Amino acid sequence: MTQTVDEELPPDRAEVRRIMSGLEYLRKLMTGELPPSGMVQLLNLKLVEVSEGRAVFTVQPDERHYNGLGIAHGGLAAALLDSALGCAINAMMPAGKIFTTLEMKINYVRPITRERGVVRCEANVIHAGGRVATAEGRITDEDGKLYAHGTATCILFRP
Amino acid sequence: MTQTVDEELPPDRAEVRRIMSGLEYLRKLMTGELPPSGMVQLLNLKLVEVSEGRAVFTVQPDERHYNGLGIAHGGLAAALLDSALGCAINAMMPAGKIFTTLEMKINYVRPITRERGVVRCEANVIHAGGRVATAEGRITDEDGKLYAHGTATCILFRP
Amino acid sequence: MTQTVDEELPPDRAEVRRIMSGLEYLRKLMTGELPPSGMVQLLNLKLVEVSEGRAVFTVQPDERHYNGLGIAHGGLAAALLDSALGCAINAMMPAGKIFTTLEMKINYVRPITRERGVVRCEANVIHAGGRVATAEGRITDEDGKLYAHGTATCILFRP
Amino acid sequence: MTQTVDEELPPDRAEVRRIMSGLEYLRKLMTGELPPSGMVQLLNLKLVEVSEGRAVFTVQPDERHYNGLGIAHGGLAAALLDSALGCAINAMMPAGKIFTTLEMKINYVRPITRERGVVRCEANVIHAGGRVATAEGRITDEDGKLYAHGTATCILFRP
Repeated sequence: MTQTVDEELPPDRAEVRRIMSGLEYLRKLMTGELPPSGMVQLLNLKLVEVSEGRAVFTVQPDERHYNGLGIAHGGLAAALLDSALGCAINAMMPAGKIFTTLEMKINYVRPITRERGVVRCEANVIHAGGRVATAEGRITDEDGKLYAHGTATCILFRP
Repeated sequence: MTQTVDEELPPDRAEVRRIMSGLEYLRKLMTGELPPSGMVQLLNLKLVEVSEGRAVFTVQPDERHYNGLGIAHGGLAAALLDSALGCAINAMMPAGKIFTTLEMKINYVRPITRERGVVRCEANVIHAGGRVATAEGRITDEDGKLYAHGTATCILFRP
Repeated sequence: MTQTVDEELPPDRAEVRRIMSGLEYLRKLMTGELPPSGMVQLLNLKLVEVSEGRAVFTVQPDERHYNGLGIAHGGLAAALLDSALGCAINAMMPAGKIFTTLEMKINYVRPITRERGVVRCEANVIHAGGRVATAEGRITDEDGKLYAHGTATCILFRP
Repeated sequence: MTQTVDEELPPDRAEVRRIMSGLEYLRKLMTGELPPSGMVQLLNLKLVEVSEGRAVFTVQPDERHYNGLGIAHGGLAAALLDSALGCAINAMMPAGKIFTTLEMKINYVRPITRERGVVRCEANVIHAGGRVATAEGRITDEDGKLYAHGTATCILFRP
């Protein structure tokens, strides 16, 4: 979800996670007690499920997400996957521990278009160790048809 | 840039590229003769340079691009990289040939924030064969400081 | 499993697969009717299970597989994963169709050593389309402990 | 080069690197003062150049490296790349610091065969921070023709 590796986070946001576990934080995002971030709003992504080591985001694609070929830009699937993978891992973190994304890998299988309807990205943790965690996610439509899939590697970040 | 692999593109957009090389098409996008796509507008990405096998996009990050930690969401760098990598490869394609992205891989090195100023992603083709092409790109600021880097693999798509 | 993308295969080997499905071919390898390839012998890899879209290889690591730090070289897990991913995909191919590896991605989770005993890599196809296929695999020990995981993208190759 | 993430290294090998920088260590490997590791011998890889943030390995492919299609198994290029990427990063480490591979990504561009002659993998560090480092490498023949390329992400490991 984030991009911090060798530098510090802004103090205020880091503060929230110092006193709240990842799962508590994400549940407050899902219910609206905490506001969604700018990018999640801009792309109209929705966090719809979260539990320990698992997160699901959805999006209804529309023309604002399109590239020059009349289908969703690869950045939409990448942002959806990055959100879900990061949250799945953060949903395992106790208060005071943040994992941030080192790298992400995405495979594109089919074009995403408005006509497909809502697509969802379900992400699950593969491995969570003391310093590193990995997760995988798949983007499907309501019929379970696959559009993209990928993995991410995160590293422990101490705020 | 795109997500089509095993399915067809919408006929109208495909039509444009049937009669125009990738480089011609991208130059018209850069000069504004062709309108930018929805996603490029939504994220405020700018195509600022294009030549055979090379493309550069820029963005001024702001809070609309942020995640919950007060830095740019990983999806911003991913969308910027995907745009640049896809265009670098498309800038080598003659009329009637389209390469579309099979997979992309991104490494996050430093957080991107508004205060960093404009970041640019320069992408260059590594290999362009008859059926497959690969490219790499790096996201840097005006001082040349590195924020992210990655690669993509594209496959020939016949419209 | 292979590295051919934009060039031709040697005619004799290609010939075998022109008349035999991937699954038939792999079953003959498993039973010993066809000899294992050089690399599989050199690294002492064993194909122990194969079915449509699924393959399992094992290896007992020893000091011939080690790097300078006294644990298995990353190339061992990579070769094991590459074998299993390629075979899982080839096990879906009819006679006359070969998919070859475009790219592979591996995450290392724990060191592999002789003392761990036999490790196995189980690979399963994620997506198999008309031109492209993807698969994922995980390397575990007999207790199910995870050592590495990864994915590959393959492209249809017509011999 | 290695696979250690969340577990400890064997004490004797770790000891050597506690008192010697990565570059010193690799130079002794290159000159033969320290013996090559098991895997490097088994695959007949040669470390032929090393400097700060850069390493070059070569191999003469032969039938022991082949897969069932009569070309080099993908594991050969992966092992060669992994060796070069890991050494390029280790060549920047002072005594007492080890970076180990978290993940590697490889693209296969052309088949490697005995007839191609010696292939070389040159790896260079992209980013080396306090906790994480990345590098890229390319496998070429004596004419500079490209066979494969890839990247790796490493994490600081304190022996």
